[in-house]
Amino acid sequence: MTTATATWLDIAADHPYGIAHLPYGVFAPADGEARVGVRIGDRVLDLGACAEAAGMESASVWQTPSLNAFLAQGRSAWASGRAWIVEMLSNDARRDCVEPHLYALGEVTLHLPIEVADYVDFYASEQHATNVGSIFRPDGDALTPNWKHLPIGYHGRSGTVVVSGTDVVRPTGQRKTPADSEPVFGPSIRLDIEAELGFVVGGTSEIGSRVGVDAADEHLFGVALFNDWSARDIQAWEYVPLGPFLGKSFASSLAAWVTPMEALSAARVDLPAQDPRPLDYLRGDALYGLDIEMEVSINGTVVSRPPYRGMYWSPTQMLAHMTVNGASLRPGDLFASGTVSGDAKAERGSLLELTWSGQEPITLQDGQTRAFLEDGDTVTITATAPGPEGVRIGLGEVTGTIRPAH
Amino acid sequence: MTTATATWLDIAADHPYGIAHLPYGVFAPADGEARVGVRIGDRVLDLGACAEAAGMESASVWQTPSLNAFLAQGRSAWASGRAWIVEMLSNDARRDCVEPHLYALGEVTLHLPIEVADYVDFYASEQHATNVGSIFRPDGDALTPNWKHLPIGYHGRSGTVVVSGTDVVRPTGQRKTPADSEPVFGPSIRLDIEAELGFVVGGTSEIGSRVGVDAADEHLFGVALFNDWSARDIQAWEYVPLGPFLGKSFASSLAAWVTPMEALSAARVDLPAQDPRPLDYLRGDALYGLDIEMEVSINGTVVSRPPYRGMYWSPTQMLAHMTVNGASLRPGDLFASGTVSGDAKAERGSLLELTWSGQEPITLQDGQTRAFLEDGDTVTITATAPGPEGVRIGLGEVTGTIRPAH
Repeated sequence: MTTATATWLDIAADHPYGIAHLPYGVFAPADGEARVGVRIGDRVLDLGACAEAAGMESASVWQTPSLNAFLAQGRSAWASGRAWIVEMLSNDARRDCVEPHLYALGEVTLHLPIEVADYVDFYASEQHATNVGSIFRPDGDALTPNWKHLPIGYHGRSGTVVVSGTDVVRPTGQRKTPADSEPVFGPSIRLDIEAELGFVVGGTSEIGSRVGVDAADEHLFGVALFNDWSARDIQAWEYVPLGPFLGKSFASSLAAWVTPMEALSAARVDLPAQDPRPLDYLRGDALYGLDIEMEVSINGTVVSRPPYRGMYWSPTQMLAHMTVNGASLRPGDLFASGTVSGDAKAERGSLLELTWSGQEPITLQDGQTRAFLEDGDTVTITATAPGPEGVRIGLGEVTGTIRPAH
Repeated sequence: MTTATATWLDIAADHPYGIAHLPYGVFAPADGEARVGVRIGDRVLDLGACAEAAGMESASVWQTPSLNAFLAQGRSAWASGRAWIVEMLSNDARRDCVEPHLYALGEVTLHLPIEVADYVDFYASEQHATNVGSIFRPDGDALTPNWKHLPIGYHGRSGTVVVSGTDVVRPTGQRKTPADSEPVFGPSIRLDIEAELGFVVGGTSEIGSRVGVDAADEHLFGVALFNDWSARDIQAWEYVPLGPFLGKSFASSLAAWVTPMEALSAARVDLPAQDPRPLDYLRGDALYGLDIEMEVSINGTVVSRPPYRGMYWSPTQMLAHMTVNGASLRPGDLFASGTVSGDAKAERGSLLELTWSGQEPITLQDGQTRAFLEDGDTVTITATAPGPEGVRIGLGEVTGTIRPAH
């Protein structure tokens, strides 16, 4: 737990990236290679260089171009690493040691913070699943019979997870609506977003063993905003019976900064009531939601404010479910919550839902309307959450601009 | 193309691992670390050590515990590497250089040959898809409307791909049959196999670009037998709407030896007729099946002989489809064909099909019957194919034994 409330850096007490937050990322200075850093205010501290200057033996874990080595060390190393960073930034005697290794954010390039091992996408918002089910399967029940018994998930493509700011090329592929006699080939005409929260996993577990709900927090390193770009026309034609594939695998954007779970202790809230009662392996003491308020904008117009606090399944339940069959965990595994949608129309986390499959286009500030994304559109998701010291912390952003299909 | 027909090693001309084959793998001697080797007869050559002794600058690409560095080099390096190996093994003058680096297969430990980047499983057997559709969706058409328009596939879990010989712990999870009022939790009672062929991908492609059918062979390094273990009860309850997840992700077994595509040139056969005609991006000159004869045994009883030659989609079509949306390729990507099933009952590649969902158990040599796998069962898949010199090459084996659930 972070106890220091002040830093010797000149940062306002209520700064969203103050000493109560300290998200990790990977950055490269103008003249250097990518390495691990921590964000403080509008600066980034080169952790490996600072640790080396301070004589820490473990400095090398941060002198790599991803968080994976640090993730592999596990919970106790994460706690001691964070405590050391707080000491360096709050003890004025450390100033001379730290200052040479601070960079202005504007001077560095941000990289993908993790080398993604396996990526799983869940489907944990009841409102989202209900909306999508109503749109995709209008003749059936909106929620499938399994939905309230298990956190539905599937594996996505790790190799196309890209860092926030990366352009997204409009995907091309097959689509076929009931009105088409044959499939049509071309750039997607129903390109969408999914506003999600990503969970970064650390430590390892053995194949054949499982990680229960109450042990899951040992593996939950932190969170980062996530945009699971989706080509609805490609997805609708391909997804029966084996699930989404090319409708999702062209790109998924991850925020550059990973907020440690320790910084979200004040954001924990009770889950919605789970009825029917889940099976025992999905029960335990470590059940929680997160009071994260998200904001989705297109070309600067806020189009939605999805509330994470209403998500049905706890991240610990998602992790316990993912491993109940004996599937192992690796450092750098990433799972995402699925689209975050609230009860209100203005809280829906995808255009599919916001425009009800394109039937009710939304209007942007400039008067343009959107059913789905157009080339040149920039989508930005931001979020805030209550921090440990009564301040509101910022969860960075995940942004991307659509480029025309090749 | 391999032209040498003789080696100075004492190996029968028709040996299934003769000089016309030369599969790659990763092995560790009793006292050493894992490194890349090539199989010749019943021995394995330490490629890095041999190349270093021969003064090759590129020896280090093989002095690593996976094929990934070699895969990254691309097609021309694969061709020159293979030509060099053939020269070393056929030119008697190279004998003194090579012999110190040969190990008897029985003296080494075989490791997973690749570090799996993304793993995709296809569904390319019309017979298998028809059988499974008939069993899982008895009230609908056996083949979904998209099946003949695109090679259906989905992403699986890379982190639980294990090398042949690794025990498989029976997975635990939720199941619910229509007869159950609530989901039931426990070890899978319908544990199955899927006899498949895995394709190992090399080189890289850029995100946002695609690899067409006629460029796909540049990325197809080789094949290895693959067993996609499947818990049918877990799968049936979870898979709607986002596809298989825990029913598959507990383990997938890959053979230790990767047969280069060059060794399969004589095995190429025409595809079955594709009707309706696929869209243009799935057409080209590089369309082929592979005349690989597989054999599945349980505890020593051959239970099936799936013929790969009848598979509907070409591996080049699968790769072109996988990237048509702009998804990038990385060295170590692995895609599997999906279960190989032929027209005859004795050619079905899963117990689900062989026993028709357990209704028609099969009988083993010892008189025992099996609807699905029991603890202690050992499943072994082997295969052969026509080789370049008129001999039949062996595709190694993929084997695994079921251990009780924890």
